[in-house]
Amino acid sequence: MTKKLKSDLGWSTADRIVVRGHDLVELLGKTSLGDFAFLELKGRMPTQQESIVFNAITVTLVEHGMTPSAIAARLTYFGAPESLQGAVAAGLLGMGDRFGGSAEDAARMLQTALEDPPLPAGERVETEVLPAGAAYPHADLRSIASRIVSDHKASKQAIAGLGHPIHKPLDPRTAKLFEIAAENKLSGRCVELMQLVGDEASRVYSRDLPVNATGAIGAIASELGIPWRVCRGLAVMARAIGLVAHLQEEMQEPLAAEIWSRIEGESSSHLRPGSD
Amino acid sequence: MTKKLKSDLGWSTADRIVVRGHDLVELLGKTSLGDFAFLELKGRMPTQQESIVFNAITVTLVEHGMTPSAIAARLTYFGAPESLQGAVAAGLLGMGDRFGGSAEDAARMLQTALEDPPLPAGERVETEVLPAGAAYPHADLRSIASRIVSDHKASKQAIAGLGHPIHKPLDPRTAKLFEIAAENKLSGRCVELMQLVGDEASRVYSRDLPVNATGAIGAIASELGIPWRVCRGLAVMARAIGLVAHLQEEMQEPLAAEIWSRIEGESSSHLRPGSD
Amino acid sequence: MTKKLKSDLGWSTADRIVVRGHDLVELLGKTSLGDFAFLELKGRMPTQQESIVFNAITVTLVEHGMTPSAIAARLTYFGAPESLQGAVAAGLLGMGDRFGGSAEDAARMLQTALEDPPLPAGERVETEVLPAGAAYPHADLRSIASRIVSDHKASKQAIAGLGHPIHKPLDPRTAKLFEIAAENKLSGRCVELMQLVGDEASRVYSRDLPVNATGAIGAIASELGIPWRVCRGLAVMARAIGLVAHLQEEMQEPLAAEIWSRIEGESSSHLRPGSD
Amino acid sequence: MTKKLKSDLGWSTADRIVVRGHDLVELLGKTSLGDFAFLELKGRMPTQQESIVFNAITVTLVEHGMTPSAIAARLTYFGAPESLQGAVAAGLLGMGDRFGGSAEDAARMLQTALEDPPLPAGERVETEVLPAGAAYPHADLRSIASRIVSDHKASKQAIAGLGHPIHKPLDPRTAKLFEIAAENKLSGRCVELMQLVGDEASRVYSRDLPVNATGAIGAIASELGIPWRVCRGLAVMARAIGLVAHLQEEMQEPLAAEIWSRIEGESSSHLRPGSD
Repeated sequence: MTKKLKSDLGWSTADRIVVRGHDLVELLGKTSLGDFAFLELKGRMPTQQESIVFNAITVTLVEHGMTPSAIAARLTYFGAPESLQGAVAAGLLGMGDRFGGSAEDAARMLQTALEDPPLPAGERVETEVLPAGAAYPHADLRSIASRIVSDHKASKQAIAGLGHPIHKPLDPRTAKLFEIAAENKLSGRCVELMQLVGDEASRVYSRDLPVNATGAIGAIASELGIPWRVCRGLAVMARAIGLVAHLQEEMQEPLAAEIWSRIEGESSSHLRPGSD
Repeated sequence: MTKKLKSDLGWSTADRIVVRGHDLVELLGKTSLGDFAFLELKGRMPTQQESIVFNAITVTLVEHGMTPSAIAARLTYFGAPESLQGAVAAGLLGMGDRFGGSAEDAARMLQTALEDPPLPAGERVETEVLPAGAAYPHADLRSIASRIVSDHKASKQAIAGLGHPIHKPLDPRTAKLFEIAAENKLSGRCVELMQLVGDEASRVYSRDLPVNATGAIGAIASELGIPWRVCRGLAVMARAIGLVAHLQEEMQEPLAAEIWSRIEGESSSHLRPGSD
Repeated sequence: MTKKLKSDLGWSTADRIVVRGHDLVELLGKTSLGDFAFLELKGRMPTQQESIVFNAITVTLVEHGMTPSAIAARLTYFGAPESLQGAVAAGLLGMGDRFGGSAEDAARMLQTALEDPPLPAGERVETEVLPAGAAYPHADLRSIASRIVSDHKASKQAIAGLGHPIHKPLDPRTAKLFEIAAENKLSGRCVELMQLVGDEASRVYSRDLPVNATGAIGAIASELGIPWRVCRGLAVMARAIGLVAHLQEEMQEPLAAEIWSRIEGESSSHLRPGSD
Repeated sequence: MTKKLKSDLGWSTADRIVVRGHDLVELLGKTSLGDFAFLELKGRMPTQQESIVFNAITVTLVEHGMTPSAIAARLTYFGAPESLQGAVAAGLLGMGDRFGGSAEDAARMLQTALEDPPLPAGERVETEVLPAGAAYPHADLRSIASRIVSDHKASKQAIAGLGHPIHKPLDPRTAKLFEIAAENKLSGRCVELMQLVGDEASRVYSRDLPVNATGAIGAIASELGIPWRVCRGLAVMARAIGLVAHLQEEMQEPLAAEIWSRIEGESSSHLRPGSD
């Protein structure tokens, strides 16, 4: 009657800890954190090529300076220094549709477009993933790209993974990530389609809309067979590292009180009788 | 008058992203996620030995099966599937005093005991760290261990980093982590003191109280010069990876509704008219 | 060049605290928490009728027993007893699309449908609100309801605010909330449309789909002129109260360790050598 | 063998929802949100006097302007507009030791001091509460106050609930809250002791250290028999309301992008070659 509760991720006995079928103790000293993350997500250790590519995309997501997430984490730590985990959590909560969501949106766009044949509406597509570098001989990527751009244009939606407010004309991370993927034989139809979407969008909108870092990450994660719904999680796990570093810096050189003071001072000054 | 807001972690211009003084693009493809985390925390790339040791302690913290954190993350995802980051945050919020705090407490115990000379009360000691493997010739580790145990006994406090409810008589991770630290020349006075504390506590309490995995991690993180206040953050960043994997599994084989149903059913049954 | 940072919610001087233009000290002893919440959201004190209705809908949202939110909060407190706020936050994080979102979705459906004239696509409609009980003489509610139901049917979307898995055939809260709204002259076109949608859906789908509590709350909140994007916040603020009560009970009679033990035991048992 | 999972807070059947033994539907329209919060925490409806006092202390905690919590919530909403609950949670996470903790600390100080007789060390005292206005004839409040102040002075700890950086020389909320408590016969030994601690501290430290708002709230919550560990929760539940109001304002007049832009611009400018 009732459903069995079971997880394949990890279990332990008195003298063993097993993660994804591997004895943890045997992995220690041989396995890097990034490779272990790959094991957690994929259920097997990465090849050397997958390791290089997976580590590259997650490294890209760790640190972006004084982002809203980092500021929120620092302000939270100021109020609750007993709870480092709460400050990290507060920072991660900002990795939503605007930030963490862009790699997810790019991956969804690509994975949905490249399903062959497409799944019927209503079926759970969220865990469908593409085999890395798989060939879909019957589809014409250029027409898929064209359809994606025209669909977005018709519904006045921005296309995920294109353009960047600061890194203009080109995001320096994109070329490097695509180069790493290609060198490691992990640049297939997802990467190609992402690039074609950028080309086509630039043509249709008559302005530079090159693939940005999150577009590249969404495409490469798709080559690695990571479901698009999990791609936001890559940003979340990587940024957790960056936020711990921000909180370490905040402990050593606190900024939160000064940030608060400036914002509070200005925001209420127009109301205070007689104050500047 | 006002304090300058500045961070040394990261910054960017149109064509460069710099993290801790390194050009991010140049690191991509060469640097693993764990090494990049070390760079974030320490401000420099690890040596090969530090890399092996740092990756080993963080890998140990990623996955512990169906913990309260993993269950909370799954239940949260059930209610808010639009917000993967919220489910990860909910899981991380449980990495507090009881779980994430044990490595922190062990590191604090060691770092505080080995300050030489001890800092005056009231000074900020939280960012004081020990040079890795430094020699403190004037202190006698055995008497420090003895004092630590007697102080805890007198105040009826548990000693952080000793014993384990499941991994008895020995935590298999401890020996391996200490072995890795020793092989990589990162086993110094912090590790030695932790082991002496375990020996002394076993003697004083007349039962097996060996160093557990979080005790080993607290000791080794101290050898790496990571401030004790940041040690909880090692658990937080590592567990973020594990929680994303749990949520991926939850997407594929949902357990939350069943967990809810069982607990809700039982908790309200004693009140329902006609039930037991 | 830069935008001014200002908030109209609150400010203070050495001898005054002002909230939404009211001297806080003068309100103390005269104003209930619910009325103060209305002041915060609407910028003015409620009439007596608005007070009764607003308090009724928020009271309805406080306590729903051992929900996934309450369980997540208890599990989080178990791991981080130093941080009550973290446990409440973990519980609130589950008030997303599935739970908190249903009142929001109902309110969006009604507020969007009753815009008169509808705003052009692409304009920010999120802060557009309806005057309480306003008359829109030119619209025919029955045809609006019919269009809503057929649109949802065509796109195979569930209609927010209808039906309930447990409270069948009728949700006892709905009739009471609508009665309170009517007695207090706050039952206008939003409530009427919600009811018509329920009638029409029951007819089209040939099964009972009466308005449930969140449908009633979404409709009444719309009568009070609360923007639909804020309706999820009503559930969040109310549930924060319920979660504090759950954590108080958890302090007195802890359940988290037992919950963990059962789930962990079962989930890993299939993997343990020698177990079933 | 296994512990029973049960909660006394709420349960439901097809036609009834019961909260703390009351039929929810019967309470709707008659019960305010604040009184319902009292019911949740105390297990019974408040008297009229308790209602006035409880609502007064919770109202005091709702809105404090552009606090670090409010800023963190706004920044989080900017990154994750799909998740209002996440932004509220991020704001609440800052209600820790520094903010939410001060009422808790004051209540702990008072409740611990007034236990009569004190419980043996090691017993769970966290849920022990004082009967409202109870008389403890054998204790001398003035000597208790004197001992509290000298203990704090000896250990160089700040005394919770005294002094305020802005509201000088007197916090205008304190006198009003104490007046409301007295008028409603809920000013007993906890309030008296708090005031005596303020007097004694001012004398010993030779500067004005009057009771502040959180000190008054901690004392009055103790009169209401609310366990000190739950007092932080009063701040959390009240502030959830304020944070929803901040997020509503943020939707209407967004500040987050401007806050981010200023902080990010300044924090990275010292590193940028060629920038100011």
